[in-house]
Amino acid sequence: MDLTIRFTNRTICGSDAAPSDGAGAVVEFRGIVRGVERVTKIAGLIYEIYEPMADRMVKRIIEELDAEYPCLAFLVVHRHGLVPVGETAIYVRIEARHRSEAIKMLEQFMNRLKTEVPIWKADIVPC
Amino acid sequence: MDLTIRFTNRTICGSDAAPSDGAGAVVEFRGIVRGVERVTKIAGLIYEIYEPMADRMVKRIIEELDAEYPCLAFLVVHRHGLVPVGETAIYVRIEARHRSEAIKMLEQFMNRLKTEVPIWKADIVPC
Repeated sequence: MDLTIRFTNRTICGSDAAPSDGAGAVVEFRGIVRGVERVTKIAGLIYEIYEPMADRMVKRIIEELDAEYPCLAFLVVHRHGLVPVGETAIYVRIEARHRSEAIKMLEQFMNRLKTEVPIWKADIVPC
Repeated sequence: MDLTIRFTNRTICGSDAAPSDGAGAVVEFRGIVRGVERVTKIAGLIYEIYEPMADRMVKRIIEELDAEYPCLAFLVVHRHGLVPVGETAIYVRIEARHRSEAIKMLEQFMNRLKTEVPIWKADIVPC
């Protein structure tokens, strides 16, 4: 599997790479900052990432899931610092032979990312 | 929900539309023609679509699923005619408030599309 993990404080653009040989499914996911956090209207969120550990844990999660849902390529980009409303906080792109693997991989990866990886909303920026 | 269903015999490009207000998740899916169909190496697949019925059935499936997994926007584009290996046969883009709805919607939609909608691989084009 071709694995790329990236952290950035800049706007995340999607990948338009051509699918790998043998890929039958490409799934992309964008997690977008919404304008309301709990009941407060916000202008953005500030994300903090403990990068060395986040990198290691993301890698481990993907490798564990890959045993069950084999993928050809996995790209994940997470933004840190201020992410304004409407912009992408996380982008994931998965290529697999079959769609069921790609979709399950995405679902499980996002669930585990949210609970296991040291990435957090450090602050909200009110309107 | 903002719903768009399209059939085309041209190359499918993804959408880079900005997410709707309130969207927290955008999921995109591409189904790609693979180079082997069963055990035969192929150059492409020829898809046929009975469009009036396919359009109606796709709409009904999405509306039914939307009751369970509410979405903000749903775009589906399916190609007909010859689709060369490595190119996209189907493109789906779903926007929802939360990721779980968007991912479940994609999974269920693709499962139902494959079994219920009159779209079929009419022929393989050998290498």
